[in-house]
Parts: sequence; structure tokens; C-alpha cells
Amino acid sequence: MTDSVSFAPACPVPATARDSIELAHGGGGLLTRRLIDDLFRPAFAVAPDDLTHDGAVFDIAGARLAFTTDSYVVRPLFFPGGDIGSLAVNGTVNDLAMCGAVPLYLSVGLVIEEGFAIEDLRRIVASMRDAARAADVRLVTGDTKVVESGKGDGLYVNTSGVGAIQTSLAPVAPQQVRPGDAVVLSGDIGRHGIAIMAAREGLGFETPVTSDCAPLAEAVGALIEEGVELHCLRDLTRGGLATALIEIAEAANVTIRVEESVIPVSDPVRGACEILGLDPLYVANEGRFVAIVPADAAETTAALLRRFGDNVSIIGSVENDPPGAVYLDTIGGTRCLDMLTGEQLPRIC
Amino acid sequence: MTDSVSFAPACPVPATARDSIELAHGGGGLLTRRLIDDLFRPAFAVAPDDLTHDGAVFDIAGARLAFTTDSYVVRPLFFPGGDIGSLAVNGTVNDLAMCGAVPLYLSVGLVIEEGFAIEDLRRIVASMRDAARAADVRLVTGDTKVVESGKGDGLYVNTSGVGAIQTSLAPVAPQQVRPGDAVVLSGDIGRHGIAIMAAREGLGFETPVTSDCAPLAEAVGALIEEGVELHCLRDLTRGGLATALIEIAEAANVTIRVEESVIPVSDPVRGACEILGLDPLYVANEGRFVAIVPADAAETTAALLRRFGDNVSIIGSVENDPPGAVYLDTIGGTRCLDMLTGEQLPRIC
Repeated sequence: MTDSVSFAPACPVPATARDSIELAHGGGGLLTRRLIDDLFRPAFAVAPDDLTHDGAVFDIAGARLAFTTDSYVVRPLFFPGGDIGSLAVNGTVNDLAMCGAVPLYLSVGLVIEEGFAIEDLRRIVASMRDAARAADVRLVTGDTKVVESGKGDGLYVNTSGVGAIQTSLAPVAPQQVRPGDAVVLSGDIGRHGIAIMAAREGLGFETPVTSDCAPLAEAVGALIEEGVELHCLRDLTRGGLATALIEIAEAANVTIRVEESVIPVSDPVRGACEILGLDPLYVANEGRFVAIVPADAAETTAALLRRFGDNVSIIGSVENDPPGAVYLDTIGGTRCLDMLTGEQLPRIC
Repeated sequence: MTDSVSFAPACPVPATARDSIELAHGGGGLLTRRLIDDLFRPAFAVAPDDLTHDGAVFDIAGARLAFTTDSYVVRPLFFPGGDIGSLAVNGTVNDLAMCGAVPLYLSVGLVIEEGFAIEDLRRIVASMRDAARAADVRLVTGDTKVVESGKGDGLYVNTSGVGAIQTSLAPVAPQQVRPGDAVVLSGDIGRHGIAIMAAREGLGFETPVTSDCAPLAEAVGALIEEGVELHCLRDLTRGGLATALIEIAEAANVTIRVEESVIPVSDPVRGACEILGLDPLYVANEGRFVAIVPADAAETTAALLRRFGDNVSIIGSVENDPPGAVYLDTIGGTRCLDMLTGEQLPRIC
């Protein structure tokens, strides 16, 4: 097991020849992207941006649909604030919401290791049911596979989801982001990653950190209902806020500038990050997102999001130049945010 | 590893208290069904038959859609006639086709074990691409997770799929099956299971057996286009022909009677089954299905299916009584087919 904590030294990162999969390939950082760009994209031959957004959008018989998939390999399976079941439901609900869709139907694919306790499975399935009810989605189809002991890690869960998009809604995608737009953050960051890390390593913090795992569809629905012009939505999962902003900046060919002092990080998360040597900007969340909207819609967006949670903040804006860069203004100066090669914390989701 | 070959002694099988997952829970037999009935169905609270059919069917904004998911854990990853990639694409394409849908869009979720050769991943991805082209579907969204060495088995693949159903099409589901209907089988059975078994165990047969892994959507499309009144379609995967027929008979509350002498089994498959002590009726297929249609449509159905493959056969009919039973007429008498507790061959798909 190599829990690599690797930082990209600079952009562009020198390509290293790798002939086998490393944990970092699943981290959502540069190595994941290289796998997508070098291997999946040419083979799957889809439209250029299909695989970098949170889901695919297409029309069938006049209906506009979003479709997304995620596999969950989080370790441990139970953590403060959730478990692999609620995570798998909320994660896919959120990916649909980030496409501007109303999440409707989810599938559940389980790969269970022989010897897994049925009581734990029961708890996780109950948690999926509760999460589905809370997010107002239906789990409609499923599949179960069992692998020999030593060929899994208890339970891996895949959820895929289908949602409906109003055909009158303008596309919600990185390509819609324009200079002058504002970046609104839906809450404080870093809770999920730190909660997992603490549970995994048995770390006891003075103030326990609970995962932010939660469905975001209702908040997004409120923005749509209010007629907010949504240019892009992105939940801050693997790779955290920094990676999400870099992906958007690159896809939209813009600069994003955010201000460190207004990015909410709770004291327990900040303290844990200092102890563990982690940057909260890169720590995964499972119930936080950024909305990129026209500047004149920023205050409305923030006010609407405050109905659904605390610490909503307008953290920055979109600029023209140079394309693809994300700048963090700090009290000590300005820092360019780079994508990590892998992930600070493997198997976070 | 316990590759249990267990037969249900009689119906109903005595319930044994199990507190942990066994390989047989993933075999598609009685233990899988018990997991669905006892654990998933109450928790997920879906319509009674949603979880027993190959996929879910629902309407969104006037479009009728099918939605399905399957995880693939086949071992070995490469086998005569296919690999986990083509299997994952064809399997989900076929589940959509069995709902009477035109398969359109697939998602791909990968759980890769650290250390997996990128060259193998490249081969498998290329195979998915080719299978998607052959089945005329698009792989539009994906996800990659990596787990530590020793926590997987190279590669597990989930594919989920969305297809479109003509709203004018009558429901295609077990509940539509009626006494008097005919059972049409699309080809010879048992190839996939035997091909996997031979590859896994390094068995050399005089005539090598190749998996029947193939997309079935075109054949189903031809039946629909010709206006054949399709009552039920079912592909013969885990648990084989026997399990598929039992599931249909139980869901439809009918008897199904089939004639052994007209069920096509190739000589190499028959020989391998004899050597290995397997019943070909229970061996998995990945490119075979049964169509249950009104008796007067049986010949048309068979004729249409012959355009897509050899050994199409009208193997039996649906009767009234007793509900839920499947009878096999043989030269020696009549045998009642029972569901297996687990699966003769684990990790076949």
C-alpha cells in the first residue's frame, strides 16, 4: 500500500512512463486525467467535454437527460457523518445536480467480498434507502456480485443515476463560464476528507470532524427555480476545491482568482490539516459545490444557498488571462494552484 | 475460496441462518434472490417486480426509458470469445434489449487494483470501444477508482445503461406471459460458462469452446420492427436457461414446460459438462435469450432470429398449472427444474 502524497512540481508536469496502475491514478488529479486523456478518450471517442464533466447530457424522444456513474471504495465503510451507502447515493445525486438536472432514478451495483457481515450490509442498505428518501430519488435497479475473500475490501458500491433537465435551461457546463463571473462556494471545506482520515487512522481530535456528505439537489433546484443564470456547477469531491477550480478554468480557458481569507475552513479541519500536513483546498468534500454565475447574480445565489447551509461565501471571480490558471490571493501574496499528481488521501470516496 | 457447487434439494429450500456473505450469494440463484427479497426489496421499497427484471422502466417527460446496471468480476479477464470489456458492454446492452429497449448510452465504472498493467487496461478499453460500436451504443460517462494491491483482482467493471422504449410497445415483462405462449431459444447454450471454466482452469478440450458473448439488441429490434407480440424476453446469464425459466414462471405464476431433446447444446459443451459434472441448463450464457410469444407467433419469431444466429429452437410452451414450476420433458420422463442455491461456477460474469 503506497499512500502517496505527491504534489505536481509545476505545470506542465513532466510525463513519467508508468506501465502499471498506481493508487494516484484514482486520485482525481493529474494521473487520473492522463488516464482519461490518453486511454479512455481516444477509445471511447465521445464529444470532447463529455468525460470531464460530472455527467453526460443527451436528449431522448424530446426529454433532456443527465446520466452519471461513480464507484465508491471508501475506507472505512462507516465514518462520522455517513457510510459508503449514503455517500454512494449522495455522490451520484450531486453529480446529476451539477448538470442542472433533477435527480430521479439510481441504480446500485455491489461487489461484496466473501465473508462480509450481512448485518453491515443491512446497515448500509438502510442508509442508502434513507439517503434516497432524503434526496427524493428512487433506487430502481441493482446487481450483486460476490468475490472471494482477499479479492475485495468488504464492499464496493457503484451508483449510476438518471435525472431530468428542463429543456428551457441553458447548458450548465464549464464552457459557459465567462470573464466577470463570480464564484460562490456553498459552505466550509475539507470536512469529508478529514472525517475519513480520522476514522481510518483512529485519530482523536479535540473537536470531532463530521463528514459534510449531503445531497445538493434541493439547493441547485432552488437556484434554477429562482431563474439564476447558472454557468457552471461543480461539487468538490476528489481533489477538493482547488482541483475543481483548475478543471473549470482549463475547460473554460479562463483564469479563476479566489481569495483565501473568505474560503471557509472550520477550526477543527484547519487544525487537523496542519497536524497532517494537508492543504484543505485539496481535501475532498461530499456536500459542497461551487456555482459560477454572472457577477450581478452572486448575491442572490449566496442568499438562496444560505437557506440550505451555513458559511456560504463569494470566494472569487473569473478573469480573462492567462487561460487555465487558478490564483489564490493570500495575505502573503498570490499563489498559483496546481493540480496534484494524485490525491492527498486515497480511497476517500 | 470456496467454489461451492450446491444444488437446492427441493422447493422450498430450508432457510439456513447465514450471517456473512458467501460466494453463492452472488451466483444468481436462491441465495441471491433471498438477499434481494430479505434485504434489498424492503429497504429500497420499489415496485414488486422492479428488482427481478433485467432493468427498470420509467417515463421521463414523455420518453419511455429502460435503465439497468451490472458489475462484472469475471475471472480470468481475457477468455476465448471476449474479455471483461466486451462482456460488460454486451451484458448491459442485452439487459436493455430484454426490456424491449433500444440501447443508447452506457456508463463505465472501473475499480482497478494497484499494479494492474496499463497495457491490459488499454486492451480492455479498446475491446469496450469495439463492442460499443458493434452494438451501436455510446460510452458517455465514466469513473475510475484504484484500490491497494490485494484489495481487488485486477479489474472490476460496472456498466450501466439507458435505452429508449417505443411508447406504443406493450410492456415486455414476465407478468405478460400467458398459458399457451411458446418459448423460443435464440441459440445453443452453455458456451460462455464452459469457455470461462476452461480458461480459468487451463483445461484443454479437443474442440475449444468460445464464449457466445454478443449483443442481442439487433435481434430484439428485428422482432419489434416485425410487430411480434413480445410477452417476455430474458437473457440466459448467471444460472443459465433453467434459472431464467424458473424466474419467469414464478413471476408470471405459470408453468413452463420445455423439451430437452430440442434444447441445442454443442458437442464440445456437452462433453465438457459431462467431464466437469455440470448441467448445461444451468451454465451461464452471454449472448443467448428466450423470447416468450403467443403460440401463433412462434414460427415467425424463430425465423426472424435465424437471421442472427444458428440453432434457434422452439423449446416449449407455457401452461396453467401448477404456478411457478418448470418441467423438463426428457426421454426418461419429466424432471422438475429447481433453482440452484448458488452458482455452479462463481465469477462467470
